[in-house]
Amino acid sequence: MSEQSPTGVPPVAQDVLLARAYLSRVAEPPAPALARLVAEIGPVEAARRVHEGRVSEPVAGETSARRAVRRAEADLAAAAAAGARLLTPEHAEWPHWPFAAFEVSGRRELAPPLALWVRGPGRLAALCEQSVAVVGARAATGYGSHVAGDVSAGLADRGFTVVSGAAIGIDGAAHRGALGVEGPTVAVLACGVDRAYPAAHQMLLERIAGSGLVVSEYPPGSVPGRHRFLVRNRLIAGMAAGTLVVEAGLRSGAQRTAADATALGRLVMAVPGAVTSGLSAGCHRLIREGALLVTRTEEVLEAVGRLGLDLAETPGSGIERPTDGLDPVAAVVHDALPARAHRETRWLAMEAGVPIGAVRVALVDLERRGLVEHCDGRWRRPRGDEQ
Amino acid sequence: MSEQSPTGVPPVAQDVLLARAYLSRVAEPPAPALARLVAEIGPVEAARRVHEGRVSEPVAGETSARRAVRRAEADLAAAAAAGARLLTPEHAEWPHWPFAAFEVSGRRELAPPLALWVRGPGRLAALCEQSVAVVGARAATGYGSHVAGDVSAGLADRGFTVVSGAAIGIDGAAHRGALGVEGPTVAVLACGVDRAYPAAHQMLLERIAGSGLVVSEYPPGSVPGRHRFLVRNRLIAGMAAGTLVVEAGLRSGAQRTAADATALGRLVMAVPGAVTSGLSAGCHRLIREGALLVTRTEEVLEAVGRLGLDLAETPGSGIERPTDGLDPVAAVVHDALPARAHRETRWLAMEAGVPIGAVRVALVDLERRGLVEHCDGRWRRPRGDEQ
Repeated sequence: MSEQSPTGVPPVAQDVLLARAYLSRVAEPPAPALARLVAEIGPVEAARRVHEGRVSEPVAGETSARRAVRRAEADLAAAAAAGARLLTPEHAEWPHWPFAAFEVSGRRELAPPLALWVRGPGRLAALCEQSVAVVGARAATGYGSHVAGDVSAGLADRGFTVVSGAAIGIDGAAHRGALGVEGPTVAVLACGVDRAYPAAHQMLLERIAGSGLVVSEYPPGSVPGRHRFLVRNRLIAGMAAGTLVVEAGLRSGAQRTAADATALGRLVMAVPGAVTSGLSAGCHRLIREGALLVTRTEEVLEAVGRLGLDLAETPGSGIERPTDGLDPVAAVVHDALPARAHRETRWLAMEAGVPIGAVRVALVDLERRGLVEHCDGRWRRPRGDEQ
Repeated sequence: MSEQSPTGVPPVAQDVLLARAYLSRVAEPPAPALARLVAEIGPVEAARRVHEGRVSEPVAGETSARRAVRRAEADLAAAAAAGARLLTPEHAEWPHWPFAAFEVSGRRELAPPLALWVRGPGRLAALCEQSVAVVGARAATGYGSHVAGDVSAGLADRGFTVVSGAAIGIDGAAHRGALGVEGPTVAVLACGVDRAYPAAHQMLLERIAGSGLVVSEYPPGSVPGRHRFLVRNRLIAGMAAGTLVVEAGLRSGAQRTAADATALGRLVMAVPGAVTSGLSAGCHRLIREGALLVTRTEEVLEAVGRLGLDLAETPGSGIERPTDGLDPVAAVVHDALPARAHRETRWLAMEAGVPIGAVRVALVDLERRGLVEHCDGRWRRPRGDEQ
């Protein structure tokens, strides 16, 4: 294994790579004690001590079961064979800034990853710079899939990376939405990046690895497990500036991702739906608990986007009425005039309850707007005015 | 015309009734200057001066067009013929407490009603005590009608009055939901209570008048107009502890009712729906602007029931507290502010579960009473406040 640096930055030393590969397999994430040790004494010395069993009780608790497993070279070779590589904090493309939240969260379950196995041409730090996690239920409805795909396409079209978990349902729709506009997307797996899981998404994963990035903290060959899906979710939340939940039941992985995002100080957004849909119940609860309700791409951009650059425009009502912008007196006078009759100014004053002088002023304005016509000393609405 | 008092309270004098009936027709609501005059010198003297034209310019502006119209006796007779009666602030069943918000709002368009024409056996003050306005689009979807009916039935079943506007669509579904469980409901019209508008709701209005109350500030025979629908909406908002918008376009009367509710310090709630439905777009915008997302009856009760509980505080404890006499929203906001910390308005809104606009209104009142201080953009309790 050798590391090529495309940016002129010195390549990562082979002993560091081997140490990180060993550490990546020795502990089941999250491994907060091991992460602290590595931060303190560096990956090479940490790997040596772990392998020799010369570690504190907390670190031993996380590593003793697998400390004898020495597969670092084999894992790096398996990754290379699958077109993947090991990405470490020593690499220039490690997303230090977004991942700093793991270090400061202080929560055991939000320990930072020790390394990431990645497959694809994307550079992770750059992809994370402007990114939104779009997640949700596996058993998504057509509505949820439509919204996930639509919003993700809009985000990707504006250069935002769509981060998701490659699952059936909302996740898949989100990735496809981004790929459909040839935009950036990152899939974070709960198994090795050399595995196609779910099997139905084999082609989708190939497409993501072809233009974006498939990411996992589990070494090649690792199988997915329920626990790993939950642990993986912190990485999805941690890579993105905000997490958008499109459809989710009251108990779901997406809720966990949202909770992680909140704990990491990231924005949580949710798409509403029918209150009669159990798959929107999780979204509604998130909104009631403080998540931002969003209905379209622009609102997501406004929340996570660059200030002043990605502001959502005020939505148009779609319907402009000729009576828009009338002052209150003119509105009352206009209302008072029957649809198909002529009326005198004095009658209008009586009907509208407005002094006759004010009625005259209002009629001038209404006439100027084409809302009334003067005819033989009386007023009427023009034909075709259905107001 | 004579007034019977069912509660032993002296009946309202005939001259007051005639004066209020005259005032009810002489000005097109809202009539803030006239309302102020009546509050100052009473209805009988106010009616005399208006009729004689001996009033200030603002009052003249509101009354000069119709001041010669003397139909008080005829209107009272027409009301009686339609099974209706005139309800005035001099009656025991006038909802003084909820309507006090009109007086303090200081907003021209939120002037209090001078009198109300009512039809039905209900007693308005009692009906308002625990009440929720349920409003929304005329062109409601099956989804919206279903939710409106369902939530209204749930509210009415728990003794809450469902206040609405008797329109086609959400309003109708709300009234029907309440009637379906034989619960209390109030319809506030933009025309005389002797008129069936919309015509398709003639039977519905009869049912409401048969068990609840049909209410209008417009004298018998008055026709509806767009302006009157908007003006009427403030009464719907003002009668209820909270306003629930079920379906609404981005521009709709329901949005106006919600805005009025916020201005009156009342809770605004909205039901979410598909983001692909234009009829949920208004609800989503309300939620984004601070309205509470609700999905079922229990969530509405949780939100407005708290206000009800605060209302039902045990009277006469013998101990006077500086917080005595606070309106419920102000009390909740005051409770939310910790004893020894500074908090931002937004934080208070979140903690109190009250829309930020209402929090701002409440803070003005609390500051005036010396219960909060503003300091460096945040709020705190003054030293020595042990509440």
